[in-house]
Amino acid sequence: MANSRFEYVKAFERENYLLPDTYIVIRVDGKGFHKFSQEYSFAKPNDVRALQVMNRAASAMLEQFPDITMAYGDSDEYSFLLRRSCALFERREMKLVSTFASFMSVHYVMQWNQEFPEKQIHSGRLPTFDARAVVYPNAAVLRDYFSWRQVDCHINNLYNTSFWGLVQKCGMSGQEAEQALSGTLAADKNEILFSRCGINYNNEPEMFKKGSIIVREYEDWTPVDEKGMTPRQKQRVQKRRSKAEIKVYHEDIIKDGFWDARPWLLE
Amino acid sequence: MANSRFEYVKAFERENYLLPDTYIVIRVDGKGFHKFSQEYSFAKPNDVRALQVMNRAASAMLEQFPDITMAYGDSDEYSFLLRRSCALFERREMKLVSTFASFMSVHYVMQWNQEFPEKQIHSGRLPTFDARAVVYPNAAVLRDYFSWRQVDCHINNLYNTSFWGLVQKCGMSGQEAEQALSGTLAADKNEILFSRCGINYNNEPEMFKKGSIIVREYEDWTPVDEKGMTPRQKQRVQKRRSKAEIKVYHEDIIKDGFWDARPWLLE
Amino acid sequence: MANSRFEYVKAFERENYLLPDTYIVIRVDGKGFHKFSQEYSFAKPNDVRALQVMNRAASAMLEQFPDITMAYGDSDEYSFLLRRSCALFERREMKLVSTFASFMSVHYVMQWNQEFPEKQIHSGRLPTFDARAVVYPNAAVLRDYFSWRQVDCHINNLYNTSFWGLVQKCGMSGQEAEQALSGTLAADKNEILFSRCGINYNNEPEMFKKGSIIVREYEDWTPVDEKGMTPRQKQRVQKRRSKAEIKVYHEDIIKDGFWDARPWLLE
Amino acid sequence: MANSRFEYVKAFERENYLLPDTYIVIRVDGKGFHKFSQEYSFAKPNDVRALQVMNRAASAMLEQFPDITMAYGDSDEYSFLLRRSCALFERREMKLVSTFASFMSVHYVMQWNQEFPEKQIHSGRLPTFDARAVVYPNAAVLRDYFSWRQVDCHINNLYNTSFWGLVQKCGMSGQEAEQALSGTLAADKNEILFSRCGINYNNEPEMFKKGSIIVREYEDWTPVDEKGMTPRQKQRVQKRRSKAEIKVYHEDIIKDGFWDARPWLLE
Repeated sequence: MANSRFEYVKAFERENYLLPDTYIVIRVDGKGFHKFSQEYSFAKPNDVRALQVMNRAASAMLEQFPDITMAYGDSDEYSFLLRRSCALFERREMKLVSTFASFMSVHYVMQWNQEFPEKQIHSGRLPTFDARAVVYPNAAVLRDYFSWRQVDCHINNLYNTSFWGLVQKCGMSGQEAEQALSGTLAADKNEILFSRCGINYNNEPEMFKKGSIIVREYEDWTPVDEKGMTPRQKQRVQKRRSKAEIKVYHEDIIKDGFWDARPWLLE
Repeated sequence: MANSRFEYVKAFERENYLLPDTYIVIRVDGKGFHKFSQEYSFAKPNDVRALQVMNRAASAMLEQFPDITMAYGDSDEYSFLLRRSCALFERREMKLVSTFASFMSVHYVMQWNQEFPEKQIHSGRLPTFDARAVVYPNAAVLRDYFSWRQVDCHINNLYNTSFWGLVQKCGMSGQEAEQALSGTLAADKNEILFSRCGINYNNEPEMFKKGSIIVREYEDWTPVDEKGMTPRQKQRVQKRRSKAEIKVYHEDIIKDGFWDARPWLLE
Repeated sequence: MANSRFEYVKAFERENYLLPDTYIVIRVDGKGFHKFSQEYSFAKPNDVRALQVMNRAASAMLEQFPDITMAYGDSDEYSFLLRRSCALFERREMKLVSTFASFMSVHYVMQWNQEFPEKQIHSGRLPTFDARAVVYPNAAVLRDYFSWRQVDCHINNLYNTSFWGLVQKCGMSGQEAEQALSGTLAADKNEILFSRCGINYNNEPEMFKKGSIIVREYEDWTPVDEKGMTPRQKQRVQKRRSKAEIKVYHEDIIKDGFWDARPWLLE
Repeated sequence: MANSRFEYVKAFERENYLLPDTYIVIRVDGKGFHKFSQEYSFAKPNDVRALQVMNRAASAMLEQFPDITMAYGDSDEYSFLLRRSCALFERREMKLVSTFASFMSVHYVMQWNQEFPEKQIHSGRLPTFDARAVVYPNAAVLRDYFSWRQVDCHINNLYNTSFWGLVQKCGMSGQEAEQALSGTLAADKNEILFSRCGINYNNEPEMFKKGSIIVREYEDWTPVDEKGMTPRQKQRVQKRRSKAEIKVYHEDIIKDGFWDARPWLLE
């Protein structure tokens, strides 16, 4: 029985090949993590161990895919940066986002079960992620992307720290805390935190305030131009990538310092 | 600190909203399942329990998403049919495929660990899936899609059954078996299977030959036209969907019988 | 000198192949026709001869492209329906819309200069068109598309007829006429037209009220299934299409009658 | 009569907004210009006056659209470069390509009729163009795009000059000339041209060898950063663009000189 009579249906499939020579960012985002965090009793406002599960799952992604040069994450989301000349899955959008969502989810389950032997993942509430891919044509806008995410982390964390401070230290109800914070600016929240909860926001852990940055580090990096390389040379470069050390940081990525120290990120 | 200075980067995000009023099929496909099946010692040519893990993971998808009306799967792939008027995630392509890949992967891990307590999933080799979404504009081409997959199942299974028959029953090496089957037609393979391996292909389990079909079944179904329904009416219809019984079959879906008995699939 | 060093830039080109087996509608729309109509002194509210220029340009499109089965137009826009199995330019979106816009514009210039020898098109104000392609998956939604355009024609024409009636027959200024019509319903406008301008809208020319429909007519049509046809058979069918008579109507296309009489339009 | 019942069909329309902050190139290409050149008796291998019609039509495009910074053309094609921050038609792909094809076609007709009063465009054979839009993320690949087109111009022109030299000067038939050139390299063609046709290719007109470049020239240009400009400031910049002198050249655009002299092209 030949399959040809029905094979014409393949003509309905569509592929979006992401524009070449642009930075690809794939952002995975936890689905319904508010409920997930309740089901598995996360500490509030930040659960250090749960954040470390995220970071380890994301690190596993970098180990899996040498094309990822760095990642930034906070809360239940992570953004993976793929280098400009990345040809993974021929840059097919659906293949990239579905594969990243799949790996992130399964790594999360594995890391969670290892971190929390006392509360293993159960079928009633599973950790899953969606993913989207976006291309950025140049280094300036790419950096602005990561700045956007880090500012977002700061805004959310300041709010959450204040909210849970008022609830946990001042005995407010959730509604009362919400009202107390309504319309406040960053400076106001800092003041409220300090005067009413005795918390100096500056002393909060960097991981909470800045999020987490995972980088593939090279000690002696020299610029690489893959155009005109033989396949064997490319293979060698890729191998070097997969052997580079993967490190986790919690620092500012809005200013130049972070990027200037790692020219390979924007090459 | 306002986020507005960097928020312009959102303008680089692109969405593909799948064409309304078309059938959506999302096909998930195991990544590197050849190696996965070796790592976890699948029985050859078909591992009944591993197939049941697939079927249970896919069934869990139907429980999760009432918009899935049926699914068809064999080997390490599954195709989920979403009804024509489905508005899940506003029909956003990346959201759909990444979420489906994520859920399928995690459900697979959970079902696997339940089925195989003696060989739990370990980090060295994880089961992951990619996913793609395709829209089909009418019932005829949609049915041809499912016929395509079922014919494909048959072709692969006949080959694999013959190959492993020759290896396991006749003591051939993999290479010898491959040569013996090279260039043969379906009839030849049936003959080889029978005469050399004592296997009557017709007596093989239906699940191997036909794959698995999962259907949301309704006892007293009446056509539904959601245009012009109130939100509450739509909610009631959706609730009815989520309560419909989910059943697994292994039968022909190329001929009319299967579809004629379930008019809601192509409504 | 080989061109290969630079040819890699072709990889940046993207094509959108319109979904197979769907109706394609290409709508061309006059660019800045308000100013164009002033520059070339159109009669108001409708310039019969200018509308005929549109109709002749659109008819020329049907002569040019046998895949167009019908067209509907009013004012400065025209919608061309391409049959469901149309493979023109491999259904490439940019090729289709740019070619249609180009032909429509040039045909318009030619027809205009023939109709209006006394006011030839001059470079200071040129008639140009943009174009968009949309696919519709089934006959019901396709008919709703054409109904949408015809209702739109009616709404605009009733307004314009009332507005210009008040200006031309009652000596109102444009602003006064606008105020008089503000917030009125269709029935109100009919009443205003009749009582104040002595115009019975029902007696207005059908071309103004209904727009123009151009159809490829067949006297003895039999359903055609091109699947499985030889190239020569397909060629013969295409030839028959290009020989079919092209006719212009001004009638209702919302009700069933028009479509029932021409089953080939929705085949 | 409200239009709302049918307006839902708008949901089937899809827009492709071209990626922000990338160079847009829109290339228009003559449709069937081989036959067009026969119908209107073009001189071979190059018709100077017909090329000037192309150049004037393209210049008219730059006058029309201040966002075009330069254009390159040869034979029956022209590539228009839109500046990186161009927001014309919100960067909607179909709108851009259809509008450009439309304007180019009508300008061509107008310019043709002015250049060739003795052989006006007639309906039997019309000059039409298709158009495609491509985005390039950085200056390097953009320059490679224009290099690709200019090398292409050279390759085609050398072939055509040789072919028509052999036909017109040596009395060969088209078939004989084709055979004489089959498999030859550039050097061979130069030699054939010189020894058999007495033509020194280097002395051929620059317009034939290099194609035509149209540039918006600024005498005192200073870099412009539109981010953070007020609408009024932007308007002033746009006005300055529309007043810049539009000049036509026939020179090398592969080497750096052309670009270094005009930094605004790649800003």
